[in-house]
Amino acid sequence: MSFKNFYITHKEKIDNELSIFLDRKIKDSKKISKKCGELLEVFKEFTLRKSKRIRILLVILGYQGYGGDKEKDIIKTALFVEFIHNYLLIHDDIIDHSDLRRGKTTVHKYFENTVKEKLSGKELKHFGVSMGILVGDIGCALGYETLLESKFSVELKLKAIKELNNLILKVIGGEALDVFAQISQNVSEEDIFKIYKNKTAYYSFQQPLRIGGILAGAGGKELKKIDGYAVPLGIAFQIQDDILGLFGDEKILGKPIDSDLKENKKTLILFKTLENCSDKDKKIIYSILGKENISLAEIDKIRDIVKKCGVLDFCQDLIKDYISKSKKAINNIDNFDKNVKFLLSDLADYLQKRKY
Amino acid sequence: MSFKNFYITHKEKIDNELSIFLDRKIKDSKKISKKCGELLEVFKEFTLRKSKRIRILLVILGYQGYGGDKEKDIIKTALFVEFIHNYLLIHDDIIDHSDLRRGKTTVHKYFENTVKEKLSGKELKHFGVSMGILVGDIGCALGYETLLESKFSVELKLKAIKELNNLILKVIGGEALDVFAQISQNVSEEDIFKIYKNKTAYYSFQQPLRIGGILAGAGGKELKKIDGYAVPLGIAFQIQDDILGLFGDEKILGKPIDSDLKENKKTLILFKTLENCSDKDKKIIYSILGKENISLAEIDKIRDIVKKCGVLDFCQDLIKDYISKSKKAINNIDNFDKNVKFLLSDLADYLQKRKY
Repeated sequence: MSFKNFYITHKEKIDNELSIFLDRKIKDSKKISKKCGELLEVFKEFTLRKSKRIRILLVILGYQGYGGDKEKDIIKTALFVEFIHNYLLIHDDIIDHSDLRRGKTTVHKYFENTVKEKLSGKELKHFGVSMGILVGDIGCALGYETLLESKFSVELKLKAIKELNNLILKVIGGEALDVFAQISQNVSEEDIFKIYKNKTAYYSFQQPLRIGGILAGAGGKELKKIDGYAVPLGIAFQIQDDILGLFGDEKILGKPIDSDLKENKKTLILFKTLENCSDKDKKIIYSILGKENISLAEIDKIRDIVKKCGVLDFCQDLIKDYISKSKKAINNIDNFDKNVKFLLSDLADYLQKRKY
Repeated sequence: MSFKNFYITHKEKIDNELSIFLDRKIKDSKKISKKCGELLEVFKEFTLRKSKRIRILLVILGYQGYGGDKEKDIIKTALFVEFIHNYLLIHDDIIDHSDLRRGKTTVHKYFENTVKEKLSGKELKHFGVSMGILVGDIGCALGYETLLESKFSVELKLKAIKELNNLILKVIGGEALDVFAQISQNVSEEDIFKIYKNKTAYYSFQQPLRIGGILAGAGGKELKKIDGYAVPLGIAFQIQDDILGLFGDEKILGKPIDSDLKENKKTLILFKTLENCSDKDKKIIYSILGKENISLAEIDKIRDIVKKCGVLDFCQDLIKDYISKSKKAINNIDNFDKNVKFLLSDLADYLQKRKY
């Protein structure tokens, strides 16, 4: 089976389980207060938006790769990673001033819109931020809740929660670096790769696979073997993300094309461009970065410079290298299900070709 | 032993264990990134500020009351509740625009101060908010981590984490109600009591005692008995908090005296005052509420009105009623350690007399 088919056959089950779980929690939370129920409903709508569900699928594949065979249980349990992801995403969207996520308004923006008639200016923004913080926090509790309720043994669940905590600490470490990088002039290539590893590779690839493996009973030594696959794939994914963030189609992407530039994100593609372009082009880029409104013409100017100095090609070659490293690693791993090896290898190709 | 002596004999041990745990986590997190370590150091400084440690002591007392006898283990484990409290507090301080907490700057404000030379205005504020969100999130992971690392059986730990999730969902439900109440004109007395129950009584009193009980092996039926003590005490504590928030001494309190008024908090004391005072006085109060800068003379005006219409006395009587209800309940509970009963009863008196 190709990864795409694996995704298609699991997508409906996953969305269905997400709905069932969240509906039950909405019902429970309404007993606490109507408002609490409303917050959870917003979280549900956000969760059920179109998504690649990569992290959930990786938990399932990590589990099956290490020999786990309780498919129903692992699907229900794997939902936790989506809740945790949304928790961090909702907070991240506040931090990054993002208005759009998965093609619709971000959570803090949604809440701003609900009180536009009562509040304005700073107060309106602050209300959105407040509710975004709280809805994110709810997602966090739901993530732990899902693991706690799952049918695996208490020992395995505890190990999984421990790994989840590692995941959260790593991604927050990466996020903090990222926030500091935005206000810093001296960001090195090493810093950028550190952010990519913590914010993407560990968090979105390595840890979901590891947690799946843990639930299948794999030990530390066995789990380590997956890193050679997960880390390069995660870095490739992030470089690809940066390319899409600059060259992608806003409608397919579901988020604005100028956000990295507006936020002055230190992406590898921009770093390498500034390192390699002419002084004149450098001035043009700096005159656009960090502006509140960036026109399509300005974005095109930057795109041209990136291409002209060969950095688009450079980044695409780098992605290919990482992907091939990743595929080699998964094929060399022992005691790992063959079908899952094939799916993970195919996933690497799939991610390279993605448009969103 | 009086509660105060219990507090004094445990205070040093608790602070010591907090330090040891956090230093270990700081060391670990520096391996992720230097910045992550710095965030944890800020969290440590915040955690070790002067605090009543009520929630930690309640976990210990819940445990001992239900027959638990591993004092060393329960102290180490009970720290989780302080980390979770700080997580929610750091987020709450962002939501409430608070600059001061426990006599020093709040976390988001602290981070603002670190970049004052680089940023200004909206961007400066946003940087503080971003870092506050992240440091709070770290506190959350540390809270779960403490429970996971504790020496109790995996079954008990999982039950405790489950109860912790209930706690978080309840307090966020209360917090959401509180945020909506601040922008609403139609807040009822019932709403206020719902906020008090969720934000204070369940969260700060009932759940810490319950989690202590769970770790001692108490079952659902036994745990329920503590509610009759915890809930009225929590409500009394919150009403007392509101009185101190208006009539207290800023220096002893460690937070500004005008914050509830500035934030237009719907406190019982203010609600009752608006219900009972003259139309003229009502106008005076409304002219002050929600202002960005409130003078001491204006606060004094409100204080006079509250006293004049008998609401200060009313609130103090209400506190007395709740405290006596609470003390009666703890004395009537069966199968609960006698010494702990005495300590909890004395705690009720102690909280009534507190100045901060």
